[in-house]
Amino acid sequence: MPGPHEMLAVALEQARLGAAAGGVPVGGALFAADGTLLGAGHNRRVQDGDPATHGETAAFRAAGRLPHYAGTTMVTTLSPCFFCAGLIRQFRIPRLVVGEARSFGGQHEWLAEHGVEVTVLDDPECAELMSRFAEEFPDIWIEDIGGPE
Amino acid sequence: MPGPHEMLAVALEQARLGAAAGGVPVGGALFAADGTLLGAGHNRRVQDGDPATHGETAAFRAAGRLPHYAGTTMVTTLSPCFFCAGLIRQFRIPRLVVGEARSFGGQHEWLAEHGVEVTVLDDPECAELMSRFAEEFPDIWIEDIGGPE
Repeated sequence: MPGPHEMLAVALEQARLGAAAGGVPVGGALFAADGTLLGAGHNRRVQDGDPATHGETAAFRAAGRLPHYAGTTMVTTLSPCFFCAGLIRQFRIPRLVVGEARSFGGQHEWLAEHGVEVTVLDDPECAELMSRFAEEFPDIWIEDIGGPE
Repeated sequence: MPGPHEMLAVALEQARLGAAAGGVPVGGALFAADGTLLGAGHNRRVQDGDPATHGETAAFRAAGRLPHYAGTTMVTTLSPCFFCAGLIRQFRIPRLVVGEARSFGGQHEWLAEHGVEVTVLDDPECAELMSRFAEEFPDIWIEDIGGPE
């Protein structure tokens, strides 16, 4: 059974792939109750012109159709936005591992309030990837979270 | 400028296309502030084996990359689940037109509480499409909202 750091490594590899392609460097991975990897992916806004593919939605899509999500764990390099948090809540994904929540005020606390077991690892590489991107490409990053406040 | 019923007609046509293909009959459409159609689509769980494509996420993706969503209206044949409601909230889509909220207890009220201007039309054809599908294919419908409670 992989631990949170091993699971994060899969999402982080996805974030690195995204960064290498010039995309928003957020990766996600979905694991089954027994630790099997169900799907992984990364944000594709830049690469595919697809605003609906965040790290978490990419991992969820890659896992394909499942009858339910009991026992699963969603892993993301960055605290989930409301879109991805809504995904986790709607599909009752019971556990969430977050790489970091420094560079973006995501909704992991909202999920915790609604019963999701949340682990925040505060991983320096996740934070470094994300803050470097936000500094280099602020317009893309602001676009990815819905435009300026 | 199209009114709510004219905008719903675009989403409903998408739901009909989904139904004709044996898919979950939920359609969505995103309109710009000036009434221009930005994108439309329907649930593709069955057709593409893609659990991340609901009516609203399909419309959002079809609209492509946008710098912000000021003034836009999301139209959906069915009250949005938390995934789609999270999308609307994250991207600060200010208006939502809902075809019906009878056949599924979606999150349009949660969105209204958070400042979205919500119009529920209670359209009989939207409700009929959805309730017929849920009766004929209960397992697919339950899967589409995250498995049994």
